[in-house]
Amino acid sequence: MRLRRKAWAADWLVAHNELVITQDKAVALKGQWQSVFAKDQPIYIEIGTGKGQFIIGMAKQYPEVNFIGMEIQEGAVAVAGRKAVDDIAPLPNLKFIYGDGAGVDTYFAPSEVSKVYLNFSDPWPKTGHEKRRLTYKSFLKSYQNVLPVDGELEFKTDNRKLFEYSLGSFANYGLTFDKVWLDMHNEDPENLAINIETEYEQKFKVKGPIYKFLGHFTD
Amino acid sequence: MRLRRKAWAADWLVAHNELVITQDKAVALKGQWQSVFAKDQPIYIEIGTGKGQFIIGMAKQYPEVNFIGMEIQEGAVAVAGRKAVDDIAPLPNLKFIYGDGAGVDTYFAPSEVSKVYLNFSDPWPKTGHEKRRLTYKSFLKSYQNVLPVDGELEFKTDNRKLFEYSLGSFANYGLTFDKVWLDMHNEDPENLAINIETEYEQKFKVKGPIYKFLGHFTD
Ligand SMILES: C[S@@+](CC[C@H](N)C(=O)[O-])C[C@H]1O[C@@H](n2cnc3c(N)ncnc32)[C@H](O)[C@@H]1O
Ligand SMILES: C[S@@+](CC[C@H](N)C(=O)[O-])C[C@H]1O[C@@H](n2cnc3c(N)ncnc32)[C@H](O)[C@@H]1O
Repeated sequence: MRLRRKAWAADWLVAHNELVITQDKAVALKGQWQSVFAKDQPIYIEIGTGKGQFIIGMAKQYPEVNFIGMEIQEGAVAVAGRKAVDDIAPLPNLKFIYGDGAGVDTYFAPSEVSKVYLNFSDPWPKTGHEKRRLTYKSFLKSYQNVLPVDGELEFKTDNRKLFEYSLGSFANYGLTFDKVWLDMHNEDPENLAINIETEYEQKFKVKGPIYKFLGHFTD
Repeated sequence: MRLRRKAWAADWLVAHNELVITQDKAVALKGQWQSVFAKDQPIYIEIGTGKGQFIIGMAKQYPEVNFIGMEIQEGAVAVAGRKAVDDIAPLPNLKFIYGDGAGVDTYFAPSEVSKVYLNFSDPWPKTGHEKRRLTYKSFLKSYQNVLPVDGELEFKTDNRKLFEYSLGSFANYGLTFDKVWLDMHNEDPENLAINIETEYEQKFKVKGPIYKFLGHFTD
């Protein structure tokens, strides 16, 4: 997803730098993230938040968790931030990082994060671009670096090739598989009942299966 | 798949006990399987051969491999055997075992088998029947017992729940994932070109995706 340049985005982000944290400030907050939230509670992060529908929905549904959405595109993170601000009540358990998900272990200390979400990550279909996929082993390593032993990874996508690839990447990295869904909108009502849809999910769930993986690191 | 009793099957099997080997004889052949084939060459086995279309097709396509189809149902293995006999030329690289796949390591010595195929295995959908699934960890252990280090496991099914389960079972057992196909009849022409269809595959490929897994044991 590449968004058109948004003229208002840069200024808006400066004006809301407590909600949408810059990369530099994120690095400085390493090990101190609880200080930016109202309550000390587990931190769940999403990498590639896009326009924020998922992470905002999660923050509303789970007030007992602190959420951080990371997004590399200025336009997207600004839209996400504005959506959060426009919300009826300000959410004390939601922040964004405007920055590169590759840096996750430069922003967070070991065990500072309790769960990582990847939703409809860019597929990078060319073999030569494998290393850019957010499910490539170097990314998995960086997630593991910030999670505790048994820390969870959850991944949804409509992209069959990316999911095929990712299953192998997860298994070969040594992730434990907790559950795999190969058509999550047509199975397992329990899972669906708690599901918060992302923008991409809403758009693509009518076109074919949505895949989901839930697993955890073990050492 | 439960077949109707076939009146001719028992006699036919006695008359063709060099092609379709009984469980007792299979146990006695442990470590000696090359003796039943024309040539000393790698042995690939299929567990749950059904009516034999896959293993017969493989034996024709790959004369440089010895194939053994294992099947627990008398009616099915007799149909498979008869199909093989009816064939234009007798295949010097094909045998069947009329027996329980759970006994794979009572029939074969360590490293005696080079590859294991599972095709459209019975799904045993109830949680309480998990241990009967041919992809349950105790079965994986028995396959590993007869394969060399790096021995391959290949699995095809149309059953989404069984495939979801099996991916987890494979990963959590420590199998290395080589490739996963989530809709093999609509992708990867290279794989499709070498694919030999099973009876179930022929029937179900028009109704939904056929899933395939290729992986190997590592120790
Ligand atoms: C296909 S969109 C999906 C957006 C949203 N998660 C959804 O499901 O609707 C992928 C998003 O990931 C972002 N992204 C890609 N690589 C990233 C990275 N290394 N760090 C942070 N965000 C990234 C992109 O800018 C884009 O907004
Ligand atoms: C659903 S059928 C599939 C047959 C064939 N592989 C195909 O794809 O058309 C499953 C077959 O596995 C056989 N089977 C089930 N459990 C078995 C076991 N423990 N050992 C050997 N065969 C078994 C059944 O008798 C049945 O013929």
